[in-house]
Amino acid sequence: MTRIKMTIEYDGTNYHGFQRQANAHTLQAEIERRLFELTGEKISIMASGRTDSGVHAKGQVIAFDSQSRIPSDRWSMALNSFLPQDIRVLDAKEVEPDFHPQFQAKRKRYQYLIQRSRENTVFYRNYAYCYPYPLDLKKMQQACTYIEGYHDFTAFCARNATSKTFDRTVYSCKLAEDGPFLCLDIEGNGFLYNMVRIITGTLIHVGLGKIEAADLAEIIKSKKRSLAGPTVPPQGLYLLSVIYE
Amino acid sequence: MTRIKMTIEYDGTNYHGFQRQANAHTLQAEIERRLFELTGEKISIMASGRTDSGVHAKGQVIAFDSQSRIPSDRWSMALNSFLPQDIRVLDAKEVEPDFHPQFQAKRKRYQYLIQRSRENTVFYRNYAYCYPYPLDLKKMQQACTYIEGYHDFTAFCARNATSKTFDRTVYSCKLAEDGPFLCLDIEGNGFLYNMVRIITGTLIHVGLGKIEAADLAEIIKSKKRSLAGPTVPPQGLYLLSVIYE
Repeated sequence: MTRIKMTIEYDGTNYHGFQRQANAHTLQAEIERRLFELTGEKISIMASGRTDSGVHAKGQVIAFDSQSRIPSDRWSMALNSFLPQDIRVLDAKEVEPDFHPQFQAKRKRYQYLIQRSRENTVFYRNYAYCYPYPLDLKKMQQACTYIEGYHDFTAFCARNATSKTFDRTVYSCKLAEDGPFLCLDIEGNGFLYNMVRIITGTLIHVGLGKIEAADLAEIIKSKKRSLAGPTVPPQGLYLLSVIYE
Repeated sequence: MTRIKMTIEYDGTNYHGFQRQANAHTLQAEIERRLFELTGEKISIMASGRTDSGVHAKGQVIAFDSQSRIPSDRWSMALNSFLPQDIRVLDAKEVEPDFHPQFQAKRKRYQYLIQRSRENTVFYRNYAYCYPYPLDLKKMQQACTYIEGYHDFTAFCARNATSKTFDRTVYSCKLAEDGPFLCLDIEGNGFLYNMVRIITGTLIHVGLGKIEAADLAEIIKSKKRSLAGPTVPPQGLYLLSVIYE
């Protein structure tokens, strides 16, 4: 039995999120089905975390055990020839039998894309959040600095979340223009449910002048979800990478 | 009765091309169906030309007659509220009753996107042609200069085409790097069936060294489709604009 770690990218548009569910087309079920076609084994995969319906990944990490004799450097090509075009293995390697992609993850990095003009909306409809109204980028960037650091992020977590603790460290939170997009790039030791999407919605409210950048400190301290901004839609969100040390 | 000219963009992925056909989901049928929902009229639309299955448009031009009293400046918003997310009206205006989007078109501009690395392939699978092998860009750019001008383009036309004449003028044919893409930008007074896709396939063969740039003059002169390169796939092709004067 060999434990394989894979880095994968996927377009989440046509999936009901990552995690296997009865009667739903999910990424986990699709990948496990293709692993069965490739190896004949009923394999359960572990992931660094779930992604919601419509959320994308440029560097999700999964792991699983297999008795197959596929050499380590052949796994990517072998599985890619079975996977549909919206899921692709970027890298595969053999790891220690106790490697766990979720529990051993040290950092995660996400990206959120806001499209600033209506141009080419049809092409980005599943890949960015179109928000063509004027936003004050400098104020939004100032607000980002309040997100960085060790905080209780309860105010930026979906109300129905079941986390044990709401304390997280955000190592870096940067917002920059990138062609027709505003791109949020955020890295932390972990993220609460909907946290990146609520942070983005809050930054948009700062950009609109509905919330002052300096109010972010108070909003964090309040632990009140109602004081933060809206949860922006899933299609702008990308899991960029998971870092293990 | 008023004749309306519209500039539209669409993602061709989920359509069997532009032109109405029995038992196929086409752009023309979809737009006409939505015009019926909006106006209650059975409207037949004219277009600057067809696009094939999987081909996109950032500036297709259509025209149609309507008895509706929708003001000229309201047509875009009105129809957009009925159209699916992969078709969008960019601009609408009232024109002379004899305006015809195909016969009065003076120039057309197309773009073809070649993706040069396998990175993010899942996101571009419907929007570019992934060709990750080494290509000599300078040779390809040199070949582009032979395409420009007034020529009989029979060698760059699908064999089953039914054009009356194969003479066309290409005003501009430029290939440039654009992030992870090679982008062909070509403008002419008209294009034969598959012409942009065959030109692109021929440029790729030049980039590979299978065809010398200077051979392009001979290939054009030969009028032999077999001497030009392959027809590259549709998903990299965009109708950028149609120019009327």
